[in-house]
Amino acid sequence: MEHNGKLNFTMLCDFYELTMGNGYLAAGMDERVTYFDLFFRSVPDGGGFAIAAGLEQVIEYIRDLHFGPEDIEYLRSKRCFSEEFLTYLAHFKFTGDVWAVPEGTPVFPREPLIVVRAPAIQAQLLETYMLCVMNHESLIATKASRIVRAAQGRPVLEFGSRRAQSSSAAIVGARAAYIGGCAGTACAISDQLYGVPAGGTMAHAWVQMFDTELDAFRAYCRTYPDKATLLVDTYNTLQSGVPNAIRAFDEILKPLGIKKCGIRLDSGDLAYLSKEARKMLDAAGWTECTITCSNALDEYLIRDLLSQGARIDIFGVGERLITAKSDPVFGGVYKLVAVEGPDGTITPKIKISENVAKITNPHFKKLWRFYAKDTGKAIADYLSLHDETVDDSGTLEIFDPEATWKRKTVYDFQAKELLAPIFQNGELVYAQPTLEEVRAYCAAQVDTLWPEVLRFENPHHYYVDLSQKLWDIKNDLLHAKK
Amino acid sequence: MEHNGKLNFTMLCDFYELTMGNGYLAAGMDERVTYFDLFFRSVPDGGGFAIAAGLEQVIEYIRDLHFGPEDIEYLRSKRCFSEEFLTYLAHFKFTGDVWAVPEGTPVFPREPLIVVRAPAIQAQLLETYMLCVMNHESLIATKASRIVRAAQGRPVLEFGSRRAQSSSAAIVGARAAYIGGCAGTACAISDQLYGVPAGGTMAHAWVQMFDTELDAFRAYCRTYPDKATLLVDTYNTLQSGVPNAIRAFDEILKPLGIKKCGIRLDSGDLAYLSKEARKMLDAAGWTECTITCSNALDEYLIRDLLSQGARIDIFGVGERLITAKSDPVFGGVYKLVAVEGPDGTITPKIKISENVAKITNPHFKKLWRFYAKDTGKAIADYLSLHDETVDDSGTLEIFDPEATWKRKTVYDFQAKELLAPIFQNGELVYAQPTLEEVRAYCAAQVDTLWPEVLRFENPHHYYVDLSQKLWDIKNDLLHAKK
Repeated sequence: MEHNGKLNFTMLCDFYELTMGNGYLAAGMDERVTYFDLFFRSVPDGGGFAIAAGLEQVIEYIRDLHFGPEDIEYLRSKRCFSEEFLTYLAHFKFTGDVWAVPEGTPVFPREPLIVVRAPAIQAQLLETYMLCVMNHESLIATKASRIVRAAQGRPVLEFGSRRAQSSSAAIVGARAAYIGGCAGTACAISDQLYGVPAGGTMAHAWVQMFDTELDAFRAYCRTYPDKATLLVDTYNTLQSGVPNAIRAFDEILKPLGIKKCGIRLDSGDLAYLSKEARKMLDAAGWTECTITCSNALDEYLIRDLLSQGARIDIFGVGERLITAKSDPVFGGVYKLVAVEGPDGTITPKIKISENVAKITNPHFKKLWRFYAKDTGKAIADYLSLHDETVDDSGTLEIFDPEATWKRKTVYDFQAKELLAPIFQNGELVYAQPTLEEVRAYCAAQVDTLWPEVLRFENPHHYYVDLSQKLWDIKNDLLHAKK
Repeated sequence: MEHNGKLNFTMLCDFYELTMGNGYLAAGMDERVTYFDLFFRSVPDGGGFAIAAGLEQVIEYIRDLHFGPEDIEYLRSKRCFSEEFLTYLAHFKFTGDVWAVPEGTPVFPREPLIVVRAPAIQAQLLETYMLCVMNHESLIATKASRIVRAAQGRPVLEFGSRRAQSSSAAIVGARAAYIGGCAGTACAISDQLYGVPAGGTMAHAWVQMFDTELDAFRAYCRTYPDKATLLVDTYNTLQSGVPNAIRAFDEILKPLGIKKCGIRLDSGDLAYLSKEARKMLDAAGWTECTITCSNALDEYLIRDLLSQGARIDIFGVGERLITAKSDPVFGGVYKLVAVEGPDGTITPKIKISENVAKITNPHFKKLWRFYAKDTGKAIADYLSLHDETVDDSGTLEIFDPEATWKRKTVYDFQAKELLAPIFQNGELVYAQPTLEEVRAYCAAQVDTLWPEVLRFENPHHYYVDLSQKLWDIKNDLLHAKK
């Protein structure tokens, strides 16, 4: 209950999580232990991989799971839940196990990013919020990674709060963008809450507020001599903006011996204007003045601008990053993959579909990544049963699960398990890395991918293979179901 | 400070609102009264109009505006603000005036949805959060309106929480979708917080959890005999799903004399499957059984399905509504339009651009809508200076501000002012309508638009004209600026 105040996200669930919960209790299935996988089916923008993000928010959510008295009252008012179920919810506590890939990990379609093992009602309840948060943050981290790679080492700043799809999309979106490689954000609260470095200088309103553009620039340089970045496109970039900026720099900064300053271009042809502005600045001796550009940028436009020799030092990226505009949905799903009997026997479950890509990988599983020992590059991911191990001291034959004749023998490799224990019996057991660590880990892991996987368009299809045992089980289930 | 707990959205601002604020104070401009317009430049999806939404969240935000001690500490740590400014912020209170179009109003490009009159620092600070919330909710309400119109009277349910761009995008997104005409949501907390009717039945996991599909359906009908809607596509829709649903209805509902029930299709060809399912249900005597369809629906697919005779009673719409997937950015902006001298003289301000559509409409303005007295239809919108009135007892010649030779005389019309006072001297003076009232108002106002404006693609361009006085002032400013 409560929004914009102290909000209990337990109630951020699809109503059917609750009708099913009530039904599981009525059917005597509430204590049945279930296994769910959270995974996605395709990479946004046709990319070669995604970046997993959102785990920190998932952890916060699971730790806080509870139904308050006003939640119970609301649910009672819906007249579809038994008093027994409402009592169950009033005492609700998460007691299950959760595994997840660390935030910042490059991930691929159809492999679990999160595995939940918990009694049916509990495991079911987590679905909506976990998907919402993981889908959103992975979407933005993935998009940021693309944009940052397009900028070829130049800093990319996240500028999109005003176009974000609601307040938390701005706040945690800036966090996800930072994980994906952005250098900072314009959003003050994301800095305050998460430590995403925030900065900012002026809007057009600043320039309009003064009698002349030059007065506005002078006033800004006086207040911020050490970090004067002037927005030069309020009236006319090359005829007034850049000359007035140079004049203000000459008048205020030069006598102070300050050489570092900047201008920002927010409209017009950024390739042309940045080159002309560079010439004017250099001719006036302001060679250390940086040029920041913003205005509807994304990875495609940045790549084009740089290929045309644009003289841009810093990119400010807004709406196309914070909404992942070119492909704004990360299609993560949460599917039942097994149930456990009272004796501990695990029975795999499958969801069939006429669309082969929508058929789930059944059973409680482990996720491995194989790295080549010589290059450190990632060769393939590998899904095995939960009780299988991979011997990486020898060779292993892996095969494409959708084209089993495509076989490959890997050797001289190191196998690393990707799913880390997060909760055990409802207790948090995971030492959460700092945001800086997550960001550095992400960059290092992206570096383990071959350039062919990093390509923006039509990238190489990275292998996510199944162990022979897992493949056999999946195949049996497919043939058993009518 | 704090996220996921008691969050102070005052800090959800672009950092430059603060650097500018600090600069205004340093330049002695902090008490200078300014006027800002919040407006947008184009309708998403090439539509003919948008639906304004988000005002309730803006009001909540403005009422709560304040900087807490931890906010001041954070800002001090950035080492770019004067102690004088930090003291100013510690005592910050909004003292300005705000006008806005009521939520649910159809709105058009370049007309103000919100007008703010306040001292410079205050007016500037509001920018980011107001834009974020208005852009998001207007985006979703606008998309919902399109989808609801495509459904031609059939209920549309909002199912998108799991794909929303973060938690608040799910929560207030469901609210905005309801304003735009959706009949309900799957999101429990949006019901609890805002009264958006929530409902839900089962996921595939429910069906998988039982030994057989039929057992799953039986158990559901036993628990919810009055509202049994069964998901029939877990294994095979026509070969097992629909026949098992009919069997469960026959066994459990028929003896109870219950005729109302439902099935849901979530995959496959919905036109074909709905028609076949309808035949099977009717043949079995379940003529009152509704068919709900979901799976990547939007206005275009719904229109196509209905034109092919699909037998769908209810649409469940997820990711393409909650992210406005086909055009996920609502490009609202917030621009300085005037400043006021100590003597109360208002000086209009303009932002120039090489792109004509980006040139702002200067000055403190009123927004009028003209309705034809005979049909009740909206004829045109009209922007005048703040001290002009419109005499709707006679005739009025209006003209296209970008093609002034296009003139039209309106007569027999009623002029209605659209901007309502929301805050006066910092005090809330607006009696907020209930969400049901907003939704009903929205539907009634959409009905005042001509069908040509409602068209999805290439709609009629509705007139937003300027008064002669306003046009003259804009023209003078354009020629005065170099």
